[in-house]
Amino acid sequence: MPRIEHDFLGERELPDSAYYGIQTLRALENFAITGIPINTEPLFVQALAYVKKGAALANRDLGVVPAHIAEAIARACDRVAAGEFDDQFLTDMIQGGAGTSVNMNANEVIANVALELMGHAKGDYQYCHPNNHVNFSQSTNDAYPTAFRIALNNKLAGYRDTLSELAEAFGVKGVEFRNILKMGRTQLQDAVPMSMGDEFNAFATNLREELLRIDDSRRLIAEINMGATAIGSRINAPEGYPELVTQYLRDITGLDLSLSGDLFEATYDTGAYVQLSGVLKRTAVKLSKICNDLRLLSSGPRTGFNEINLPALQPGSSIMPGKVNPVIPEVVNQTAFYVIGADLTVTMAAEAGQLQLNVMEPVISFALFTSISYMTNACRTLREKCVVGITANKEHAENLVRNSIGIVTQLNPVIGYEASAGIAKEALKTGKSVHDIAVVERGLLTQEKWDEIFTFENLIRPVFMK
Amino acid sequence: MPRIEHDFLGERELPDSAYYGIQTLRALENFAITGIPINTEPLFVQALAYVKKGAALANRDLGVVPAHIAEAIARACDRVAAGEFDDQFLTDMIQGGAGTSVNMNANEVIANVALELMGHAKGDYQYCHPNNHVNFSQSTNDAYPTAFRIALNNKLAGYRDTLSELAEAFGVKGVEFRNILKMGRTQLQDAVPMSMGDEFNAFATNLREELLRIDDSRRLIAEINMGATAIGSRINAPEGYPELVTQYLRDITGLDLSLSGDLFEATYDTGAYVQLSGVLKRTAVKLSKICNDLRLLSSGPRTGFNEINLPALQPGSSIMPGKVNPVIPEVVNQTAFYVIGADLTVTMAAEAGQLQLNVMEPVISFALFTSISYMTNACRTLREKCVVGITANKEHAENLVRNSIGIVTQLNPVIGYEASAGIAKEALKTGKSVHDIAVVERGLLTQEKWDEIFTFENLIRPVFMK
Amino acid sequence: MPRIEHDFLGERELPDSAYYGIQTLRALENFAITGIPINTEPLFVQALAYVKKGAALANRDLGVVPAHIAEAIARACDRVAAGEFDDQFLTDMIQGGAGTSVNMNANEVIANVALELMGHAKGDYQYCHPNNHVNFSQSTNDAYPTAFRIALNNKLAGYRDTLSELAEAFGVKGVEFRNILKMGRTQLQDAVPMSMGDEFNAFATNLREELLRIDDSRRLIAEINMGATAIGSRINAPEGYPELVTQYLRDITGLDLSLSGDLFEATYDTGAYVQLSGVLKRTAVKLSKICNDLRLLSSGPRTGFNEINLPALQPGSSIMPGKVNPVIPEVVNQTAFYVIGADLTVTMAAEAGQLQLNVMEPVISFALFTSISYMTNACRTLREKCVVGITANKEHAENLVRNSIGIVTQLNPVIGYEASAGIAKEALKTGKSVHDIAVVERGLLTQEKWDEIFTFENLIRPVFMK
Amino acid sequence: MPRIEHDFLGERELPDSAYYGIQTLRALENFAITGIPINTEPLFVQALAYVKKGAALANRDLGVVPAHIAEAIARACDRVAAGEFDDQFLTDMIQGGAGTSVNMNANEVIANVALELMGHAKGDYQYCHPNNHVNFSQSTNDAYPTAFRIALNNKLAGYRDTLSELAEAFGVKGVEFRNILKMGRTQLQDAVPMSMGDEFNAFATNLREELLRIDDSRRLIAEINMGATAIGSRINAPEGYPELVTQYLRDITGLDLSLSGDLFEATYDTGAYVQLSGVLKRTAVKLSKICNDLRLLSSGPRTGFNEINLPALQPGSSIMPGKVNPVIPEVVNQTAFYVIGADLTVTMAAEAGQLQLNVMEPVISFALFTSISYMTNACRTLREKCVVGITANKEHAENLVRNSIGIVTQLNPVIGYEASAGIAKEALKTGKSVHDIAVVERGLLTQEKWDEIFTFENLIRPVFMK
Repeated sequence: MPRIEHDFLGERELPDSAYYGIQTLRALENFAITGIPINTEPLFVQALAYVKKGAALANRDLGVVPAHIAEAIARACDRVAAGEFDDQFLTDMIQGGAGTSVNMNANEVIANVALELMGHAKGDYQYCHPNNHVNFSQSTNDAYPTAFRIALNNKLAGYRDTLSELAEAFGVKGVEFRNILKMGRTQLQDAVPMSMGDEFNAFATNLREELLRIDDSRRLIAEINMGATAIGSRINAPEGYPELVTQYLRDITGLDLSLSGDLFEATYDTGAYVQLSGVLKRTAVKLSKICNDLRLLSSGPRTGFNEINLPALQPGSSIMPGKVNPVIPEVVNQTAFYVIGADLTVTMAAEAGQLQLNVMEPVISFALFTSISYMTNACRTLREKCVVGITANKEHAENLVRNSIGIVTQLNPVIGYEASAGIAKEALKTGKSVHDIAVVERGLLTQEKWDEIFTFENLIRPVFMK
Repeated sequence: MPRIEHDFLGERELPDSAYYGIQTLRALENFAITGIPINTEPLFVQALAYVKKGAALANRDLGVVPAHIAEAIARACDRVAAGEFDDQFLTDMIQGGAGTSVNMNANEVIANVALELMGHAKGDYQYCHPNNHVNFSQSTNDAYPTAFRIALNNKLAGYRDTLSELAEAFGVKGVEFRNILKMGRTQLQDAVPMSMGDEFNAFATNLREELLRIDDSRRLIAEINMGATAIGSRINAPEGYPELVTQYLRDITGLDLSLSGDLFEATYDTGAYVQLSGVLKRTAVKLSKICNDLRLLSSGPRTGFNEINLPALQPGSSIMPGKVNPVIPEVVNQTAFYVIGADLTVTMAAEAGQLQLNVMEPVISFALFTSISYMTNACRTLREKCVVGITANKEHAENLVRNSIGIVTQLNPVIGYEASAGIAKEALKTGKSVHDIAVVERGLLTQEKWDEIFTFENLIRPVFMK
Repeated sequence: MPRIEHDFLGERELPDSAYYGIQTLRALENFAITGIPINTEPLFVQALAYVKKGAALANRDLGVVPAHIAEAIARACDRVAAGEFDDQFLTDMIQGGAGTSVNMNANEVIANVALELMGHAKGDYQYCHPNNHVNFSQSTNDAYPTAFRIALNNKLAGYRDTLSELAEAFGVKGVEFRNILKMGRTQLQDAVPMSMGDEFNAFATNLREELLRIDDSRRLIAEINMGATAIGSRINAPEGYPELVTQYLRDITGLDLSLSGDLFEATYDTGAYVQLSGVLKRTAVKLSKICNDLRLLSSGPRTGFNEINLPALQPGSSIMPGKVNPVIPEVVNQTAFYVIGADLTVTMAAEAGQLQLNVMEPVISFALFTSISYMTNACRTLREKCVVGITANKEHAENLVRNSIGIVTQLNPVIGYEASAGIAKEALKTGKSVHDIAVVERGLLTQEKWDEIFTFENLIRPVFMK
Repeated sequence: MPRIEHDFLGERELPDSAYYGIQTLRALENFAITGIPINTEPLFVQALAYVKKGAALANRDLGVVPAHIAEAIARACDRVAAGEFDDQFLTDMIQGGAGTSVNMNANEVIANVALELMGHAKGDYQYCHPNNHVNFSQSTNDAYPTAFRIALNNKLAGYRDTLSELAEAFGVKGVEFRNILKMGRTQLQDAVPMSMGDEFNAFATNLREELLRIDDSRRLIAEINMGATAIGSRINAPEGYPELVTQYLRDITGLDLSLSGDLFEATYDTGAYVQLSGVLKRTAVKLSKICNDLRLLSSGPRTGFNEINLPALQPGSSIMPGKVNPVIPEVVNQTAFYVIGADLTVTMAAEAGQLQLNVMEPVISFALFTSISYMTNACRTLREKCVVGITANKEHAENLVRNSIGIVTQLNPVIGYEASAGIAKEALKTGKSVHDIAVVERGLLTQEKWDEIFTFENLIRPVFMK
């Protein structure tokens, strides 16, 4: 039998099975944009439950919510945090209302779970009310961003691990390829020789730096504004509550959360999201550059660089037999473009905040949650399906070096820049080798000196000589 | 009993129920980024079936695929286009391979449906092969973008209708509010009076222009490259095929498709997507501006502009009783920010194309499909849940005008810019009314002249007088 | 001797030499952001003069400005349009005030020039006043965007010519290279052979399409709102003025200008700028892609693709002798990134418009003027310094094809996709040629058939055979 | 008499007065895109001189450049760093070649200044050669980014100070306005009362956080790669040189520069620029939000919020007398949009780096230098021309609160959320005051209790009561 609920706009019928209530129902009707519900992000549902539990316990301690109700709420939160009621969190990822619908979705589900735990029927809100009990001492203005920040922090932990593993996979290849000589290239032109190991090591270094930036972001988003209530005014929150609920949340989440020193600012500010989005974008830019390189280095097989082979994962063409494509770097490039686009969404949403609140936070949460998910998936895919299986075409890579003009730079300190340039010009025009022009034709150095300079060791790790 | 399929990378086991084959299976394993399968966009699945049907019929006519196989393929395509096998189109929206996985997903499903139609078992590809029959005369390079363009065209048709209805809803309000006097504002400062009808009419005009831009886009994306096969070379496609398949696709889809005059260019070019994305962005920018205005005009109720009321859809706060927020404009703003971000994704993906193909087309399709869906939903929501229910606070709006300094501009031609400026300055400083300063204190014009100038008609639709 | 001017904020001293007046002086003090004055764009100064001339003549005809004053204004405008007073247009490219400072800069300079033409001293505004005469029947809200649109239209004409010349230069290379066989590449992997002429032809086709998009933009920005005055209300403009001044402006500029049908909408709308910016961005995306290709195709000389040579313009390295880099494509890539960034600036500025005006138009003008200038310079540079001097390494390009695996696709219709794939796999593993595996080892076709298939003609322009 | 110089492309004539040489001349001819020379950024010219001086001294100490030449170079660098030769640094801000033209511009000017210091004629490069002496142990790959980073670091120092002063100016207003009661607003709807001081304080807090982010950026860009030479290989640089030159540069610049631990990575990586650009963008987003707020709060004067007055700086309209506009916030908004666009330019340029170098660094430098300049100018302008002169309309702001419905939230703990909501609904419908409905009509609390709750102190800084 359906139950009736009301709010100040009127009455509505809820299915008996629904733990959510009238305000969630209105949200479902009002917001049908993406079709992607908030439970797509279980860490967000979990974080909402954490916040409500922390508030309930603080409210109990401060005597503003009766202990038996507060404790029922806390137990309900445990069950929600465990994922038992994920199917009740149906609000669309993008909504108007600055997160009020998400906050009320949580308040309503938790109230009804608590009611049942106390032996009451769903909807008997006089015993445990979504607003008057579950939401006590809170406002969407503080509960929503706090839950969002906790969820982000936990989500980033997993992302960081995956990214770190990817960096290490590149590092392993750096060691594996350390004695493979290859031509370094700048501006797509042959430059000077190098070790392929140094090239892959640089990928590892490049990504390891991102871990530190993620740590920065996690610190920034660990600042919360519980107790700010409406606009940061602390209205309707008892003395001592902000500090107490923050302490409870530290305990519940295990995160090093801190209370903002300026609750008015903290309530509207989205700077930490912009910073985090920028960090995700930076990593996306780096990953895209690395994948561009992997695709260049594996180009060919016969008419490209062909220095490395990526694992063959699937036939590359519906028409060209035997074609194998760098599909994993390609999908990572595309993920990067998504993340860079999402960063712009975050930027515009942050800029659009007005006065005491940024009402655009839901689209920020949508952008950040999807970006972190996609980046995590992309990093895992890149490592598992590509990096660990990369092999080098050692002989081909070395032949390219020996046959190149770029080795002429090694002669600079010995014969000078201008004489070297003359050799290069002649080699380019005639197709002759640097050796033949320098030693045989022009006699600019002896064969002995040549041999001393162009050892494998000196090509791969040049030592200064004059 | 599972069946075994093989490709040139080896063998794999497929569940008996699967209409897709080994290459789709590899795609599912290789690409797990968004978790959003291509069947989220049923028009795309449908368009793939259209393309395959058109190709089959052209191949039959040209004698390169046996008639009985081609016709089985065509019948299979009809069933796929009708949505019967949507659950078999599971490839992730973002994939590497330039769409090969999507194309092969279609080839495999259609081959197996055709096999069953011909009385064979799934996987008996000697009777109807994904590559050798379904994909005959095609390449991913032409089949994929053609299907994408057909799907976009059809999707845009629905979007256009929804946007048009929104424009008309604003137009209706323009008529309804035509005799409501209000203050026009520039730079958020009081400017000169106007009719509220003209303000809403302008919204209608503004959006109607977008319909023409959508029409431009639809024309551009109606150019297809069937018969280009690999890189535009027409390799493996029989003489006359490009024109014939294009004619079949015109008949099947009812769209005014045309064959590109430069198949090499058409095969790599993504300009039409960039243009379309730009059109979506432009509309998003306009919608966001309009929603900003709606939020400004309904700000208050007591400390804002309060000229209009948006329909109350849900309680606006978990803590502030009676608060009602402009939740629908807010969700539309956020949708706009998503679309603007997605446009950047399209831009970067388009720029990243190399040589004879743009391998980033899948993320372009993801961005465009979601943008059009979200925009369509946003336009419908804005109309249904907001615009049609907007009411005007006529008396308040008019009082603001009568009490304003901005009406002083009406005096310019009569008393000159400088004298008018003097009145304005005095009014601002003292809080006095323009009338009192101009007529009573300074005697710059008679009461009679004042009454002649400041009629309701003249305020709302000023007539030049000197 | 300096002169004194005043406005309603007070008095200020102007140097005797200054044709600009007090409001320009205030603008110079208030806005010091970019340091780039509006006279950097002489077409903008010219267009302001055109607008003021058109208004003066219409005002004269309608009897609202005395003929001798109106005609002095018109003559002053001619001199300003000719560039004689460019040094008086000093307002910073980015300013607050929605263009008021730019409009007043023009009003003041023109008034003082007119005063001198009539035999009065600068500053004797009773004879010709910046507001009461030069600006009569106008507002910044209409005069500024109209001048901006005229300037854009003229600037686009030059840009279009330069872009067209670039497209034709690619077309010339398309003819020159038509009989050079090369490997087509998709996803940076060897695909199927093609003619280098078709590759360069595609660049030409790709850019020629942009000319049509520029034409679209020019049509959209040819719609003006003269007579809208403040917010589109037509306040203070005489009956018949909008149509008359538009006709005058058509005559003066030679452009096919039209009067907007909804002046309220036209006054705040920035859609035409967003569209134009999107067109510039689209061309930038295409140019960047083409330059990426040129850099890839000329990569090497020994360890890259090396199919073409770009003209050597300068030593490429301060340390690597003989290195020559693709510096012109590189600078064009960077220009493209600038333009894509500027498009975002335009987007955000357009979104930020509020109510009856978009106050952010100055930064839109800054972004569009610089983008068009830089694009014009980039197109000219790319043609003159690079495209016309490109040479092909014919022999090398053909050798790459003959030695490739990609030619196996040509065998598809003869021996089937799977047998072809088997050959490709073997060739890749062993390094053997396709010919040897197909004809000699596996006997899948006769030498005679092979010769029939792999003629130069058939490789470069494949004919279907079975 | 002009002198002749040559490089490996041929000979060219240089004007006698030119300190720059043939390679700069070629750059001037090749790159004519922006028309903005690098000397627009004197700190960049200075930093180039610092780098060359540091290298010269290290080369002297290590015995690879003769002491008398190295010391002449060092003295020449001092003069260049002092700005004496800024007019010789004419290379366009955007160039191809990865900075080679800028590096050679510096090498050539310094060589010629050194030659004159040693008593030789310009161009007598056997005594001091741009490549063989000035550029010794260097490559563009290390000298260019090192100079860029030093210049950025110094430029950021000035920007940081200006931003800090702006934050403090808001802080001063925070104190000044601390006892002004006003309505807080969320979602543009009346929320709960607050102090205007807290609103301005939040602006100060918001911007102070940016100072820390700038400090982060300065740390990241203090990592340099001197000694990397080509691609990070250290080729042609003597043992010990990287550490020694870094030490010299620390001394010369006074900055805490550090040598990268992975020179291959450091040579191509642009992560620090992306991070810095993100920080600039974040501040731009915040400034834009703050300026949006200032414009909202000063909207009116009669039909807007009208809580504050911005200083009147110039007449606001060419037609509407007495209109004063928020021109300074407007110009800051526009600056922010420029910076956000420039961040996209940086993002795309960073993504476009390939293999061992990012050739797009010049456009990154253009974007970052202009962004920092414009932001510095915007912050100074905002403080001087706007913030310090803001005044509050105390009485009006308080009246809005007293007359609002939003104060009903204060009743929540006393009468419950639902009873409060009922009052709000009635007030909205009838226009009555909260007081009259709550106390007089419905008797939900006594006048005494009302007075206890609604003290000025409690409105402005609510204390929890039940």
